[in-house]
Amino acid sequence: MNTRDRILLATLRLFNDEGVAKVSTNRIAAELDMSSGNLHYHFKSKEQLVEWLYRRLEAELQPLTASGPSLAALDDVWLALHLAFEAIEKYRFVYTDIDYLVREYPRIGERIQQMTLATTETVRSMCRNLAQSGVIQIDSEEIEALAFQIVFTATCWNTFSRLIGFKSRESSAPALAAYHVLTLMSPYLADDARHYMHYLRSKYLK
Amino acid sequence: MNTRDRILLATLRLFNDEGVAKVSTNRIAAELDMSSGNLHYHFKSKEQLVEWLYRRLEAELQPLTASGPSLAALDDVWLALHLAFEAIEKYRFVYTDIDYLVREYPRIGERIQQMTLATTETVRSMCRNLAQSGVIQIDSEEIEALAFQIVFTATCWNTFSRLIGFKSRESSAPALAAYHVLTLMSPYLADDARHYMHYLRSKYLK
Repeated sequence: MNTRDRILLATLRLFNDEGVAKVSTNRIAAELDMSSGNLHYHFKSKEQLVEWLYRRLEAELQPLTASGPSLAALDDVWLALHLAFEAIEKYRFVYTDIDYLVREYPRIGERIQQMTLATTETVRSMCRNLAQSGVIQIDSEEIEALAFQIVFTATCWNTFSRLIGFKSRESSAPALAAYHVLTLMSPYLADDARHYMHYLRSKYLK
Repeated sequence: MNTRDRILLATLRLFNDEGVAKVSTNRIAAELDMSSGNLHYHFKSKEQLVEWLYRRLEAELQPLTASGPSLAALDDVWLALHLAFEAIEKYRFVYTDIDYLVREYPRIGERIQQMTLATTETVRSMCRNLAQSGVIQIDSEEIEALAFQIVFTATCWNTFSRLIGFKSRESSAPALAAYHVLTLMSPYLADDARHYMHYLRSKYLK
């Protein structure tokens, strides 16, 4: 692993575990047994570290966003959600520290907001597709509300976990999160699709 | 206003505007033109300030939690949600900084988690009531999912606002938030109740 990657990996862990506000570049350098000057040579500021980590999250989510609109079966949706949650969990500081990021780094905040809006559009297309292929029965106004709720739940899952005291760090967390997002579609599901939901429920919910 | 209240008010504003992680007790004292010693006389630590502010939020939410299970009409639910969101907005640091609070002050974190669980139980009872009075048509498994989603949306609303770039600080924010929580019930609404939802939609959604 090259030095840049080593720095980004250590920073990601510290941001996730201790919060962006508390972690200084000096702290990151110390963690890596590296001089502050050397760290500074690779990344000029904490903002740059946040930005590069955020780009990696974007890159991991990009294929999902690209394929989202073409998903037409419930198990494909479930798999896509599962993968999305793995990425979200990996870079969870982006979501749990969003208040800090928007305030301190407005440019990155705006980019995150654009991604959230783009994701909402993707989910909207996906819902239209599922309706066309008969998986869900839903009108266009309900699609608006459903897409909004799906993105809301997906992006705020980690924050809510803290509020309700879920054990985080469980290996099943992304699957559980994906399942909960999928339950948002429950009221609209056609009968066939309902069986698949029951299967998932028995598998992931206790 | 007595000194304790002045301190709590200034602290609340700083926590909300700048995040709990960034605001030190020295900073709060400076904001109030007060010596650190004097602040310390009233509140021994930042944790104490967090705790006292959190108690006020609990006190403001308590009557809503108490009356929640007895609500049986949609406009009562809407009013209760509206009031809840005013309290949540006022003490928004509790929700946007939950990751930090749980990590730094586990005792307070646990108390917040207990409140979230109690709120979920309240919302569950409310849903059962609405079903009994015929406002919604829903089975018991769906009530579980709906109660979970309502509490999720209510408590994470401010975090999601940051993620999607809503203008915060708008006076209509609590109403808009309450409306969105109410839309979660949409799929289950009986026809009469549906008219009321349309009325709210025309009033609060653009």
